Amino acid sequence: MEKIVESLRKFRMERDWEQFHSPKNLSMALIVECAELAEHFQWLTEEQSRNLSSEKKQAVKEEIGDVLIYLANLADMLDIDLLEAAREKIEKNRIKYPADQARGKSLKYNELE
Amino acid sequence: MEKIVESLRKFRMERDWEQFHSPKNLSMALIVECAELAEHFQWLTEEQSRNLSSEKKQAVKEEIGDVLIYLANLADMLDIDLLEAAREKIEKNRIKYPADQARGKSLKYNELE
Amino acid sequence: MEKIVESLRKFRMERDWEQFHSPKNLSMALIVECAELAEHFQWLTEEQSRNLSSEKKQAVKEEIGDVLIYLANLADMLDIDLLEAAREKIEKNRIKYPADQARGKSLKYNELE
Amino acid sequence: MEKIVESLRKFRMERDWEQFHSPKNLSMALIVECAELAEHFQWLTEEQSRNLSSEKKQAVKEEIGDVLIYLANLADMLDIDLLEAAREKIEKNRIKYPADQARGKSLKYNELE
Repeated sequence: MEKIVESLRKFRMERDWEQFHSPKNLSMALIVECAELAEHFQWLTEEQSRNLSSEKKQAVKEEIGDVLIYLANLADMLDIDLLEAAREKIEKNRIKYPADQARGKSLKYNELE
Repeated sequence: MEKIVESLRKFRMERDWEQFHSPKNLSMALIVECAELAEHFQWLTEEQSRNLSSEKKQAVKEEIGDVLIYLANLADMLDIDLLEAAREKIEKNRIKYPADQARGKSLKYNELE
Repeated sequence: MEKIVESLRKFRMERDWEQFHSPKNLSMALIVECAELAEHFQWLTEEQSRNLSSEKKQAVKEEIGDVLIYLANLADMLDIDLLEAAREKIEKNRIKYPADQARGKSLKYNELE
Repeated sequence: MEKIVESLRKFRMERDWEQFHSPKNLSMALIVECAELAEHFQWLTEEQSRNLSSEKKQAVKEEIGDVLIYLANLADMLDIDLLEAAREKIEKNRIKYPADQARGKSLKYNELE
């Protein structure tokens, strides 16, 4: 991940794009990328979404790459450690959704969210 | 990153949540998390978004953690290597947006997107 | 619809909120509202989403109201007639997706999108 | 608006598309359309977003049309009156954000949201 953040810094400095990369703009661009990702799934059944063709999967992989790129850019512009942010949140979720209470309950799940 | 993917697998298996984690559902949940992140920035100026209070920054960090969690879950359910996806996309972008042509041009930037 | 646009104008002028209502900001707020709407559906099956409890339906109705409010605000700030925009697009779609070719084909549908 | 809802019903019945139009799917498609709209604004300054070229404005108008189409489809599939939903929400907001307290305060605005 550190190498990716390194590449992204170099990439935007070489192009002088920091001026466009305000956290506000990056948060918008991040949603736009996520929507391009979701577009692949919107008319599929859940079952179909679990069984993509290799062609579709490659297209989805590229969109997933885009999402991580914008997310890493955003975290970097805010001086936030992306992996640490996820680790801390997982820890918090472990306490919030105890395994024995949350197990396999869709309504519960829905409420817990 | 591998450790995070490990934790997430354990987390969802302990709760029997794989049934809800179809790629379709996860792609929706991913957008919802990104929107919660963007909500922090929507009425701020770009300048303000570059200078968050430490309180706001902590809240943003948690949302960023959530986004990575859903993105990693989605990639894992599709058997996609998240970091590889980003690396491949950065390589592709390097070719698509040559530094000497894309430098500091907002209109250009806009078109290039 | 005209009365709604009237109310919204009055509402934002009384609060001096035009300054925050740049099309850029409103387009972000619009996504955020749509995400709050989608949140109600993200862990439901399609079948469940067609059969909401009256309580859930009321919550969804409020989110739908919010989405229309931001959409109408955005159109108004850009001096665009919202209903005309929809009418023109429906006309365009009628030509783009001829009924006899598009009928009931999910793959087709997907491609046509 | 009623005529638009009429057209949309006819449009989807002629194509046998009701099967894809679960509220869940429509809520996803709605976000995807909003993201295509926001994409026009993501690298613009707020000032630029208030002064679109007529070409850009036409493109934005089409996206706005799309958003209303999906929103009206969603409301119709749930048997919700779209305009009524907005009217009720405006009434609620009038009470929630009293004009004399909310006037022109960006921080306030932010909190009030």
